[in-house]
Amino acid sequence: MQNFDYMTPTRLIFGENAIAKLHDVMAGLGRRVLLTYGGGSIKKIGLYDRVKELLNDFEITELPGIQPNPKYDPSVLEGVRLCKENNIDAILSVGGGSVLDCSKAIAAGAKYDGDPWDLITYKVKAKAALPIVDILTLAATGSEYDCGGVISRTDTNDKIGYVDPLLFPVASFLDPRYTFTVSRKQTAAGCADAMNHTIEQYFCEDSTLLNDGFCESMLRSLMVNTRKCLENPEDYTARAEMMLCCTYGCNGILSLGSSDSGWPCHGIEHALSAYYDITHGEGLAIITPRWMQHILNEHTLDRFVKYGINVFGIDASLPEQEIARKAIDATYAFFESIGIPMHLREVGIGEERLDEMVHHIAVNEGLENAYVPLTEKDIKEILVASL
Amino acid sequence: MQNFDYMTPTRLIFGENAIAKLHDVMAGLGRRVLLTYGGGSIKKIGLYDRVKELLNDFEITELPGIQPNPKYDPSVLEGVRLCKENNIDAILSVGGGSVLDCSKAIAAGAKYDGDPWDLITYKVKAKAALPIVDILTLAATGSEYDCGGVISRTDTNDKIGYVDPLLFPVASFLDPRYTFTVSRKQTAAGCADAMNHTIEQYFCEDSTLLNDGFCESMLRSLMVNTRKCLENPEDYTARAEMMLCCTYGCNGILSLGSSDSGWPCHGIEHALSAYYDITHGEGLAIITPRWMQHILNEHTLDRFVKYGINVFGIDASLPEQEIARKAIDATYAFFESIGIPMHLREVGIGEERLDEMVHHIAVNEGLENAYVPLTEKDIKEILVASL
Repeated sequence: MQNFDYMTPTRLIFGENAIAKLHDVMAGLGRRVLLTYGGGSIKKIGLYDRVKELLNDFEITELPGIQPNPKYDPSVLEGVRLCKENNIDAILSVGGGSVLDCSKAIAAGAKYDGDPWDLITYKVKAKAALPIVDILTLAATGSEYDCGGVISRTDTNDKIGYVDPLLFPVASFLDPRYTFTVSRKQTAAGCADAMNHTIEQYFCEDSTLLNDGFCESMLRSLMVNTRKCLENPEDYTARAEMMLCCTYGCNGILSLGSSDSGWPCHGIEHALSAYYDITHGEGLAIITPRWMQHILNEHTLDRFVKYGINVFGIDASLPEQEIARKAIDATYAFFESIGIPMHLREVGIGEERLDEMVHHIAVNEGLENAYVPLTEKDIKEILVASL
Repeated sequence: MQNFDYMTPTRLIFGENAIAKLHDVMAGLGRRVLLTYGGGSIKKIGLYDRVKELLNDFEITELPGIQPNPKYDPSVLEGVRLCKENNIDAILSVGGGSVLDCSKAIAAGAKYDGDPWDLITYKVKAKAALPIVDILTLAATGSEYDCGGVISRTDTNDKIGYVDPLLFPVASFLDPRYTFTVSRKQTAAGCADAMNHTIEQYFCEDSTLLNDGFCESMLRSLMVNTRKCLENPEDYTARAEMMLCCTYGCNGILSLGSSDSGWPCHGIEHALSAYYDITHGEGLAIITPRWMQHILNEHTLDRFVKYGINVFGIDASLPEQEIARKAIDATYAFFESIGIPMHLREVGIGEERLDEMVHHIAVNEGLENAYVPLTEKDIKEILVASL
């Protein structure tokens, strides 16, 4: 078991009408608020009006239009400028993980005099950040319970995970009803995102009975509840459990004491969505079973066998190789069954820039240190199999 | 799924030589420290000397001699007096859950002008508390990751759980090596304590697939690793996983969104250890299977079936009533197999004060609102079956 130093101080305020507590939480942080959001879905569901009504005695500056795979330019830069100009006390992120990730980078940039890219690339360590509160409208990334964010830079095709304990949200408001209107496509992609977060922690050296059990429970719950959400988008209980599952995905609680796997599928996927701006969860779903197939060997066999038996209920009396193969097939089949396009070509990625992406991943993602080390050749094979 | 408002801000610093970070953590809290500990085992294992060496530039006041089932008088009162007299900045608890529970009550009392009993009984809500850091030497109570403590008052036979978000430890240092010398009796009792914490959250209304899976993983891991610790007390990996499991027992993460079960076994056991000062974990182990037997009915059958299949691997094709009975028998058999005395008479409790305890529990513990409501008659039947 590995040593660790772990903390997640974020307050989770969960359930129907959770935002009744919004005013009290925000009042503790100051009166000048930057309200960040995305494409306007929060207006359609009435959440925008409700927030403005609840905070009618606050000075609110708005940063709308934050995109999926949030962009350094313009969103982060614009947010930092607004914070400095308006002497903002706190950021309120209303939306999904992209809005929140962007808000985290803004929170750090607002307290830094130089180019925020210095912070995101760890050239400079942030000394302070504005406090962040979020109201989540999409169950997927787990950003509401971690201290990281992923920022894309179009001019360089960089997509960088930026992590700093200063960036834990003070509070995350999680009302499952706000996810009732999430589309089938985004519901499925959110599930795939959270499942992959779990898989990235499950497939590692030095796991424990406890972590294995937690991860297996996550995966079983995500599959059952996503199916229910797709059947009935207003199934409160299923949306609620899915929301809670996703919340645990990225703060490390599923792998305390385990070795770091290096998160290889994320390393590969980040290039795909940086180059092609595809939906992150779909990219992960496409990569995951091909990566599994690629790393299945004598050393990893035990992990696949355990995964197959405990997550998919595969007959434990079958030969181990067969259990492992069935487990990989079941992973693919599940993603396909919830409507995810399972080939890169279906999301618009062909062979044209494949070598360029492969090289970018090999140079930038450190996958030579992953659970099963991946060379440039390995990465290419996984991507070719995913086409 | 129930609404919830959850936060656990404690930093967990886990692993071999974790206390290398002790000086830095304490330096952030102030120079005048109250060092609390128990009966001297921390001196035997060299931890006392190590702490004094690491903090040789601090002003340390000591409160030794804190007992299991920690006492309001003298320990809490004496600790509060020492804090006030010495203008203490922070408390460093070195020991098990009892030392830490006592330290939490002292931390609140030190910032209150009246009788600390007012706080413990919620007559007055604490406005502030001293910061607490702990170095844990016993895997059991989960106090290192929650904001509660249990305090006993000998003159009134009260044993009260005192909970306040002000009482989360700032940091908990968890080095599994400090538990190598824990006796067989205390290792087993610690396991029973953590297993019961899990069971109290598992047997409830409105549980989720996720919580069920987390709880089942906890129980399986605790059983496997406790056996390993008893076979080889210096099995680092087993001690480490047991320590981590216990840490999750009481902070609520195993039951987010579930209905509160009312923790009925704890309600009953608190009276036993208040009247007879028995080891808390042993009392819980004795009560648990008798309580299970008592509440098994048509409504609760499903829970017992799930518990039996997923925790003990009982054949799912058997009739449900048989699975449930086998599950209860397996619970009893496991506790017995790790050496816990499984009858109240073996720990010195006879019929003499039974009615008095039953009445005390019925009046004070609110078990009419438990998962399966318990009347005074029910409580008596459970205790008589436990004799």
